[in-house]
Amino acid sequence: MIKLTLSYDGTNYCGWQKQKNGVSVQEIVEKALKELTGKEISVVASGRTDAGVHAEAQVVSFEYDGNIPPDRLYLALNTILPNDVKSISSKEVEDSFNARKSAKKKTYVYSFYVSKTILPLLERYATLVKEKPDLDLMKKASKLLIGKHDFSAFCSVGSSVKTTTRTIYSIDVFEEGNLIKVCVCGNGFLYNMVRIIAGTLLEIGQKKRTEESIVKALESGKRELLAKTLPAKGLSLKSVEYR
Amino acid sequence: MIKLTLSYDGTNYCGWQKQKNGVSVQEIVEKALKELTGKEISVVASGRTDAGVHAEAQVVSFEYDGNIPPDRLYLALNTILPNDVKSISSKEVEDSFNARKSAKKKTYVYSFYVSKTILPLLERYATLVKEKPDLDLMKKASKLLIGKHDFSAFCSVGSSVKTTTRTIYSIDVFEEGNLIKVCVCGNGFLYNMVRIIAGTLLEIGQKKRTEESIVKALESGKRELLAKTLPAKGLSLKSVEYR
Repeated sequence: MIKLTLSYDGTNYCGWQKQKNGVSVQEIVEKALKELTGKEISVVASGRTDAGVHAEAQVVSFEYDGNIPPDRLYLALNTILPNDVKSISSKEVEDSFNARKSAKKKTYVYSFYVSKTILPLLERYATLVKEKPDLDLMKKASKLLIGKHDFSAFCSVGSSVKTTTRTIYSIDVFEEGNLIKVCVCGNGFLYNMVRIIAGTLLEIGQKKRTEESIVKALESGKRELLAKTLPAKGLSLKSVEYR
Repeated sequence: MIKLTLSYDGTNYCGWQKQKNGVSVQEIVEKALKELTGKEISVVASGRTDAGVHAEAQVVSFEYDGNIPPDRLYLALNTILPNDVKSISSKEVEDSFNARKSAKKKTYVYSFYVSKTILPLLERYATLVKEKPDLDLMKKASKLLIGKHDFSAFCSVGSSVKTTTRTIYSIDVFEEGNLIKVCVCGNGFLYNMVRIIAGTLLEIGQKKRTEESIVKALESGKRELLAKTLPAKGLSLKSVEYR
């Protein structure tokens, strides 16, 4: 089994998963593997990323028995992959490894920038915010989300999951250069969960709502108590951890 | 006279200046002004940026006698401009102001990232470097360039200028997040000068050459003593200062 780490700019893709309408990252990767090996290879990712969402390090697994040494496979693939989807490492792992099922922790980062107008050099990977939020208020409110909770309020309609209980290990809110980042680490996330968390913390920081809305949303499971889902382009899958 | 500050992602443009082949940033801005005011308005920029070069803050000047308050003109323009070219401020200045002639200092930043492979989320605004340079060597060598010099060796062919003497006020070499940046401030720059400086400092940092090549190039004016011109995408006009 091969564990391959990918990085991609999601702007021009309909998301990770193959779809009838639009080009997916999965399709691009599977086509490159076909071109490289001559075989149809199906890859399993740690999870789907939605249309327009980026990945600093997405992990995928697939079976491979070709001649290219596993730790050089990513370099061979990169000769075929386009510049907005590249593989950054590859190695052979035990056969039981499954990029989705074996994942223990995932970390996503949501990025904002504060400006009166769109800034072209930040716009591609971050979301414009007109009012600067109070980071201390955001940090304080984020503590309410840490731990094991039923996050059903933090989930857009259209998903079907067995359970809406997830564990959040940490949330960091910080400035980096011109960006404000919300970095969320958990054992898994519901549909749009990080974008709803980041949007709600932002509005708390902007004093458009109080941390009460988080308390009530966790209690009631009501989606409408929270902020709107933020745009995809501000979101990036930062890392996936395995045992 | 209006002083307007623009920010742009140069990826999809043939540079600042209007050209027969390709869409220029100037053309986009003048078309937006035409649409807004109904008049043909010619804008003067602090200087041209080449194809693919970005601008955090390019300054332009033009005559305007319309009804929109000067300090709100940039917001009105932004309703027309595309997302990769936006204006970030505007104000009325004295009639003698000319964005090119009145400019006193310009600052450009060149960005690198160190990686074995292309990283899609950095690739748009920085240049891939496979070997990490020694920043101390780069900083030390950069000192040789400070001051008033004949920079004829630091100039690509194809430019016609009255004098090749320029003054460099400062060069900062530093790390910021995943990027290595070379920030150069001077009273003006020759064609490709910043990209040749950044490339030469990089190779000194990578021990592919010594600072001797800067000494000899300044003495002899020979372009071939220096590194190749680096790609446009790593370069951004950071600011232009006026009196």
